This record gives sequence, structure tokens and C-alpha cells, in this order.
Amino acid sequence: MNTVPPATELPRALRERLAAIAGPGNLLTAPADCWPYGYDNSRRHALPQAVVFATDEDQVAALAQLCHDTGTVLTARGRGTGTSGATVPDHGGVVLSFERMDRILRIDPDNRLAVVQPGVTNGALQQALAASGFFWPPDPSSAATCTIGGNLAYNSAGPRAVKYGTPRDNTLGLRAVDGRGRVLRTGVKTTKGVVGYDLTRLLIGSEGTLGLITEATLRLTPLPETKRTLRVTYGDIHGAAAAVSAIMAQPITPCALEFMDARALEMVSRYAGLELPAGAGALLMIEVDGPEAGIEAALEAVAEAARAGEPIELRRANSAAEVAALWKTRKALSPALRHVAPKKINEDVVVPVSRMGAFIDGLDRLGREHAITIVNFGHAGNGNIHVNLLIDPDDPDEVARAATCLDAVFALVIGLDGTLSGEHGVGLEKRDFVDRELDPVALALMREIKQVFDPAGILNPDKGLPPVD
Amino acid sequence: MNTVPPATELPRALRERLAAIAGPGNLLTAPADCWPYGYDNSRRHALPQAVVFATDEDQVAALAQLCHDTGTVLTARGRGTGTSGATVPDHGGVVLSFERMDRILRIDPDNRLAVVQPGVTNGALQQALAASGFFWPPDPSSAATCTIGGNLAYNSAGPRAVKYGTPRDNTLGLRAVDGRGRVLRTGVKTTKGVVGYDLTRLLIGSEGTLGLITEATLRLTPLPETKRTLRVTYGDIHGAAAAVSAIMAQPITPCALEFMDARALEMVSRYAGLELPAGAGALLMIEVDGPEAGIEAALEAVAEAARAGEPIELRRANSAAEVAALWKTRKALSPALRHVAPKKINEDVVVPVSRMGAFIDGLDRLGREHAITIVNFGHAGNGNIHVNLLIDPDDPDEVARAATCLDAVFALVIGLDGTLSGEHGVGLEKRDFVDRELDPVALALMREIKQVFDPAGILNPDKGLPPVD
Repeated sequence: MNTVPPATELPRALRERLAAIAGPGNLLTAPADCWPYGYDNSRRHALPQAVVFATDEDQVAALAQLCHDTGTVLTARGRGTGTSGATVPDHGGVVLSFERMDRILRIDPDNRLAVVQPGVTNGALQQALAASGFFWPPDPSSAATCTIGGNLAYNSAGPRAVKYGTPRDNTLGLRAVDGRGRVLRTGVKTTKGVVGYDLTRLLIGSEGTLGLITEATLRLTPLPETKRTLRVTYGDIHGAAAAVSAIMAQPITPCALEFMDARALEMVSRYAGLELPAGAGALLMIEVDGPEAGIEAALEAVAEAARAGEPIELRRANSAAEVAALWKTRKALSPALRHVAPKKINEDVVVPVSRMGAFIDGLDRLGREHAITIVNFGHAGNGNIHVNLLIDPDDPDEVARAATCLDAVFALVIGLDGTLSGEHGVGLEKRDFVDRELDPVALALMREIKQVFDPAGILNPDKGLPPVD
Repeated sequence: MNTVPPATELPRALRERLAAIAGPGNLLTAPADCWPYGYDNSRRHALPQAVVFATDEDQVAALAQLCHDTGTVLTARGRGTGTSGATVPDHGGVVLSFERMDRILRIDPDNRLAVVQPGVTNGALQQALAASGFFWPPDPSSAATCTIGGNLAYNSAGPRAVKYGTPRDNTLGLRAVDGRGRVLRTGVKTTKGVVGYDLTRLLIGSEGTLGLITEATLRLTPLPETKRTLRVTYGDIHGAAAAVSAIMAQPITPCALEFMDARALEMVSRYAGLELPAGAGALLMIEVDGPEAGIEAALEAVAEAARAGEPIELRRANSAAEVAALWKTRKALSPALRHVAPKKINEDVVVPVSRMGAFIDGLDRLGREHAITIVNFGHAGNGNIHVNLLIDPDDPDEVARAATCLDAVFALVIGLDGTLSGEHGVGLEKRDFVDRELDPVALALMREIKQVFDPAGILNPDKGLPPVD
């Protein structure tokens, strides 16, 4: 783990004020207690000087005000499942954990909305919504553990985004605390509203650098009646890419359109013993949902489009057991990857759907040039590819080659009109690269917006945007 | 018309620099020529000192820089179909008309996007997209005339928003010029992207106060295979409101869910001679779209939900002629209203769907209290109601009563957790009311954001937000 030197202890007066604001049982200051709040899923770690558990909005506002007045850095955190280091307190200071502010305040089916505290997990919310026949579309793979606040902070999506969008498309309004400790309300309780500037979407995806979300009004979607699953295997990535383009150009939008490349398939067949048709060079997992009445026709329309890529096999699941069997291929991938390379570099990039074939070809070339094994899978319907560089972190030569290779991967993405992150965010991991994508004027405006929301620079400083020279 | 005194002539040196930037044939300065660029559909008018026709981004940037350097006010304008006065140049200065920057630059079905200049009309774009089997969901009633730039500036929607969302949900990225004359690029060319803050949605709906949009990358939706139409009549608004709630709580989302209240029905039956069932007190127009295979079942599911309101009649259209006949009721309304009250006050507000019945009851009460006839219709699926106060503008007493009544209407909306504008925007018409809805901290942040994008305050000043005291 990359660890910065342990932070110095907080001055006693500050600690006392923190304790008074946090309330009994809501403050940790002993390094051993604070330690687990210093990392996320990026393998980075930094020890905070204190951890406060958020209990209500007033407390969060008082805390932010204290940090503002004393110049103390404040890093918000859900459950630490992020992969970008955005919640790692690399400047020390206070970590504000939202895990105890986890209530679902209201579920309102008639108005298709739910009001929640930020610490509720995505999984717990989905479970509560299902009883009313609704769901909240964002579904990161960490849904069982990750919090809605974290989903909003990163604009995290998942497979369903291809049909149902990301948190920015599924949130009506927020309550938040800014960097001066002021409470604000954004957005509306309705599905339309054009009064004032859109601060809701500005806060979503800002990685805790503009405000601390204390409540969210989420837009709900009715649960579809039923779902069908296809697994389609192609000889190479170009077949799969042609199929994805054909699928996206016809009227039925699948609710999942996932893909795995040749090396990913090789990995699962070697380490999970899964059978795949001979010559499998790329695979699509496709799901279609909707009302029972039209589902067979919808599935057939998508299957027809998938045939545009001349598949070597097209299998459909006709039962829950068969659905599970088809998804086994995809689900076996992460354990297989961990087995081969416990310290893989997992990148999350996006290219336009029509450039996916060119992108995978480019990655193959870069892998050969830099002698790095690259395994790709992801959300093909959005062109959102998870690029995995398999490396041994104890081999300094390989680490150096991977860094050069990664640089070239980012250049390839930008060259193909893509973006450096689709859903994992920037945090610390990519902040040195984002100025390749962002316009200098846009970047200058973003820095000024940061200044507006957080004039003292206490909210998760130097995350998301490149550090100022 | 409310007209401010004609603006003074531009200083000669400024006029010469404007002419050099505008290019031959792209500058108007004679008052008679400028006159038609001084109004929109709000009945307000103010004469600009000059009109420049935008031709390309470089020219727009040079113009904004000149205005910035000389403190000249710059008001962007599409085709002037807005109803809020947002494009009325009440501070004089230069009107920048985008009507000649009207090219569709690219239609890309595989990536479900189109790149357009701001001056293309919504109607022209839809026509061009249809050939590829796609559409852009926002559909204001002025679609034939209004521009995409205007749709983006106001976040204008229309009936389809209930299923397909507003411009904020259907735009991937922008190019724009800020108040210093700097060109910026926002967003992505893909359907996912989380790098940097969301400036795209911040610019959308900002009514030309933050930037001048010079290009938009729009997210496209495949055209549905087919559509079915229902017209459902209820005895009163509570029946219709119960039906709307029931419809929104089941899985099939209609692509239009429009409503008319008792007075609106009375008006069309009196002035358009349309037959309606006896006792009609509220009407819903419902459209369901989707693949041919499931459409009948979808229609039946929605009809079943509509029956929750105990309709007195439920009619479905089985042919194009019948669809047209059913929509006649709704289409007859605007001419009927114009006939009764050529100077009606047309307000656009939103309440949560479940509060619609209470809202219409409240409006009835306010109408009686203030002796004003109020006619309501709108996009029920979003709770987006167009409230029409029928007045004679030459009767000062009625005008005064209407103003008091309108104030009470806004208080009612806010009290029901609604918003003061769903799609028409704020402009000049509502800017004095928005601080009742917006949080003071949010409003302060918005003012600072305005300052960031437009430090000299030249971009459409004092629109959208309440003027600073």
C-alpha cells in the first residue's frame, strides 16, 4: 500500500470542539481506530487525524463550519468501496463517515421518488423499493455494500445504465452542506423543474469536493415485469463490436449489454473450467426487460441485431437456472483475474460504441509493445470498458512498463473521442491525466466553481481535478 | 406591450468594431431593423441597439470578448418563441441571433448521437433524424419553429418528457463561449463520463446567463415502432388525478399523459363545438408507444390504471383518423382560449403528481376569491400544469386582482412542494418570485457561479435570478 507518513495529532482544543460537535460515540481519534477509515479499494492509504460519524445535517454543518474556520481538511466517505482513492485522506484531517446516516426517509410510489440519507446502501434501498414495485437504476457491482451517497459522489452506474442512465439521470434533488458549513437545498420534488441553475447535477460526481450530501431525493423506475438473457459468442472483437452497434441502432434497448474480450474468456476457461465454444474470441451478455407481453419479440429483435456480428454461438436462458449458468462466465472473471494477478491495475474508460473494435485492437497492440497482459471487459452498450493491466507490483520493471502503457492507453482513449472515466471517478488515481481530456477553459471554470463552494479548500482538496502547480 | 424607452445609439467606434466582427450582412443597427429582435412570446419588448447574426464559434467568441471589454450587454436568441421574456433585451445592447447557425453537423446512429448548431429548429432536426430511425425527445409545442439552442437554454420539454426526459437528460456535451469570450467544451461524446464537474447541465437551463451555446452533442432515442392513443373522461379532477397516480405507479410509462380541467373542457365544447360526454369534469389524453408486439398489452395495462379514477368514458383510437379526432379536444383549447381572452396570463408550474387534485381545488378557490377565471391543462404525468388566468388587460382592476391571485397561485405551488416553472423558464416574468422557491444559500451560490462564468455581467443580466437589491 502507498501510505503517507502518519499525520500528526490534532491540537487538543480542536479535538475538544470536534468531540462536542460529533456527540458521544461519534468521534475516533486513536490512530488504530482511525486506520480502517484511511483506505478505499484503490490500495492507497493515509491515516486521518480523526473520524467523525455523521448523525444529522446540523451536526454535518457544524463540523464543516469548524473545519472551515480552522482550515481542517474534511473528507466524506460512504463505505470505502471506491477504486480511485477519492476518499483516502491524503491530507490528513477529518474523515466524515456517513455509514450511520443510513435511513430511508420516504418511499413515494405515486410520485416515483424516494428520499434517503446518504449512508443507506444501494442494496438496502433496492430491497425496500422492490416491495412497492420500483427500483433505483444505478447498480454498481458493489451494490450490496456501497452507499447511495457514494454512488452520487462518483456518479457511479453499472450495467443497467445503458437503458436507465446514471445517478445524474435518476436524482431529483439534494440537501447538502457547502465548504462554509452552510446548508443548501438543490433541485425539486418533481420530475420537471427549471428554476435556477442545476446545482443537483453539479454536486453529483463532484467526489465530495463541492459539498457534503446529507439527503437525496431519488427518481424511481417501475420494476419491469420480466427479463430475458442471451449469451452470444463471436470469433473476434470486431464481430462483437458490429453486434453492439447494430443492437444500439434498433429500437429495443437492452437493460444489460456486457462484453468480455478474448483474453478474459481464455482466463475464465483456464481458471474456472467453464466451457466455451471453440474459437471464442469475444462474448456478449445481453439482457432485455419489459412487459411479459412483448418480451419474446423484444428478445428476438435484439438477437437479430446480435447476429449482425456473425456469432459462432447464440444461447438463450429459458429458466432462472439457465440465466445463472450463462452469467457464470462473466461472474467467474473477477476471481480468475485476482488469481492470475492479485494486484492488477483496473482502469475504467469509455469510447464511443462504434470505436470499440478499434479500441480493443489498440489495446492488443499496446499490450504487445509494452509486454503487459491486458484483459478487457465492461459495459459495451455504453462503450464503457474496464481495462485490466495484469502486473506483479513487486517487479519494478513491470511496474514501470505498466505506467508507460497506461499513459498510452489514455492517449488512445482520448484519440478515439472517449473519456478517461465512465463510472469509477478520478480521485487521486487519474487526477494527473484529466487535463488531457478537459478543455483548459472548462478546467479553469471548474477550479473557480470549487472556490465558490469551498473557499477555504477544506472539502477533499486536490481530488478529481489536477493539483494546481 | 411593455416597452422600455428606446436605447440610445451605439458609440460609432463600437459599431465599427461590431461590424468587423459580425462580417458583411450580419449586423443590424437601424431601430426599425432591430425592432423584431426585441420581443419574444411574453408580450414584452425592448429595442436592442444592434443585432448580430452568429455565423461561427470564432465570431461568437470575438463578439463576447468585445462585449466583455466594453461592458456591452449581450442577449442570445433563437427564434423568440419563449414566453418568459428571457430573450427580451431590457438592458439594450446587442442581441445575438443564432438563426443562421442552423446546420446539423453529424447524425451518428451507432453512437445514438447528433451534433448540431444551436440555430437548427427542433422540427428540422426531428425530420432529419427520422430517416435514421431516431428522435430527440424534447418536443415543445413550438417545435416547428423553436431552436435547439433555445430548448437547451430553457431546458424546454413537452409531453414526451414524462417518458423520455428533458434536454438535461438528453444532451451529452456542449461547446460554448463564456462571458470573457473564451471557448469551452463540456461533457463527452459517450453515454457515460465522470471526469470533472457537470458543466453541461449547468449551462442547460441557464437562459443565456452563463454562456453562449455554439454546438450541442445530443443523445438520440430510437423511434418506437408504434403508438396507441386513449382519451379518458372523468367526472371531476379527483378522478383524473387518481388515475394519473395509478398510471405512474405501474410499470408502463406513457409517452404522453396530458390533462384538461373542467373549465378547459367547457371552453372547447362551447367554442369549438366538440362533443364530450355529459358531466365531463376532467380529461386525460394518454399515449403509449413501444414495439408492435407488446403494444396492446401495454395499452390495456395503462387503461386498467386509468380506470382507477372511475372514468365516465374511455375511448381508444384505432386508426390515424381516430387519433387525430381524439386530439382535437386538446388542440382546440389554445384557439378557444385566445378567443375568450386574447391576453391571458399563461403560467407554467409543477406540483408532485399526487398533489394535482389538491392543486386544482386550490386554484378553483383562488379563482373564486379573486374573481378571475382560471383554466388549467398540462402534462399530468410530470405534474406540470399550465395555469391560465383569463383577463382583460385594459381593465386595471382585473389586472390588479390577477396579480394578487398569481401571487397566491405561486404560494400554493410552493406549499405543495412544487416548482414555479417546469419548462417555460424564469426570464423576466418570474425572477421576482424565484427566491420563494430557491434556498438562500443555493441562490447565493448561483450568483457566484454567474460571476465565475461572466465576471463583467454582460450575458443576459438580471434574467433567471432575482435582481440584486
